[in-house]
Amino acid sequence: MRLRKIKQAEEILHQHPKYVLFHPEEFCGKWKEVFQNDSPIFLEIGMGKGNFILELARRNPNINYIGIEKEQSVLIRAVQKMEENELPNVIFLPVDAFLLDQYFEENELDGIYLNFSDPWPKTRHAKRRLTNQTLLSSYKSRLKQNKAIEMKTDNRHLFEYSLLEFVHAGFMISKISLNLHEDEEDVITTEYEDKFIQKGNPIYFIEVKNEKI
Amino acid sequence: MRLRKIKQAEEILHQHPKYVLFHPEEFCGKWKEVFQNDSPIFLEIGMGKGNFILELARRNPNINYIGIEKEQSVLIRAVQKMEENELPNVIFLPVDAFLLDQYFEENELDGIYLNFSDPWPKTRHAKRRLTNQTLLSSYKSRLKQNKAIEMKTDNRHLFEYSLLEFVHAGFMISKISLNLHEDEEDVITTEYEDKFIQKGNPIYFIEVKNEKI
Repeated sequence: MRLRKIKQAEEILHQHPKYVLFHPEEFCGKWKEVFQNDSPIFLEIGMGKGNFILELARRNPNINYIGIEKEQSVLIRAVQKMEENELPNVIFLPVDAFLLDQYFEENELDGIYLNFSDPWPKTRHAKRRLTNQTLLSSYKSRLKQNKAIEMKTDNRHLFEYSLLEFVHAGFMISKISLNLHEDEEDVITTEYEDKFIQKGNPIYFIEVKNEKI
Repeated sequence: MRLRKIKQAEEILHQHPKYVLFHPEEFCGKWKEVFQNDSPIFLEIGMGKGNFILELARRNPNINYIGIEKEQSVLIRAVQKMEENELPNVIFLPVDAFLLDQYFEENELDGIYLNFSDPWPKTRHAKRRLTNQTLLSSYKSRLKQNKAIEMKTDNRHLFEYSLLEFVHAGFMISKISLNLHEDEEDVITTEYEDKFIQKGNPIYFIEVKNEKI
């Protein structure tokens, strides 16, 4: 049943070769050619159903957005939204973030978003967290000097872990909020975030800058 | 009335010249002589009524503790506790923390505690916060290499501010908790903290290490 579901999702994704790219490694270092412009490129890792990245793309037509989501059955929801209102500055990658170095060249990215990543609460699963040292090292090399990673989570342990890991990896913390929606208006939200804030729970936010030596 | 209250407090404090030192600048660089041993020296800034520092001193007879509290009418409560159960490894300073550089020599301290410091919520009062850059620079020079500052607060804005300031000042964050009493057992508490946790509110905790270059 599950295999069949994935197969169907894959078929749907393959129907949109213009903005669903199954082999991003082919475009490593050539993303400006893919978008056919020189606009900055922002990446969301774990974009889910796409509300966040699509709203950003609508508001900022002069920025290109690439979303990574390895769960194909989730990604098709974002594809459906694109079918309704196609945006020229959005591309989806149904791939694994852990191979990021193969998809982008050094200094190719202008920003990275990590929204409500899986907290992987067990210590033995720490390597799967999107803020582990291996990935932070990829982010650091792929992101331009002084550009930012923005992270949102409702999981305090992931927040605490990530803060320490960011500092350890040599990023400079530039913003912190323990209650983002109390501190900021007009926050662009994810589907998960909408449900979460309805319960009145706080969203933790970190922004770090990439200070290369 | 207030003046009289302070005068009385000062008189009481002067009755204990053995452990209440009004002129700590006279002992700058000579604290080991004051304690008459080579034990490490830990400092609590804003020690209030002294529960925290006195309990630490009871548990760790081989560590010396110095508490700073500029509010004399508050400090006499700690003095009263010392009268009941005198500890040889505790000294109180009824002085202003902003003159820290005059009280201690470089590398004279083995640890600093900041517990529930005044958050000074208005931006124009940021210079009064005990984690502003001027004081962090004093802490950095007075604290030995790799030794820690531990900070507890219930105020999320002070927590957020302090985290950024610590990183900016070149300290390395070594521990973070957004709910200290959920994460740790047997926490030594302050009077304020006891009242606060009874309400079920979280205590924020940061530990930073002094990495000198």
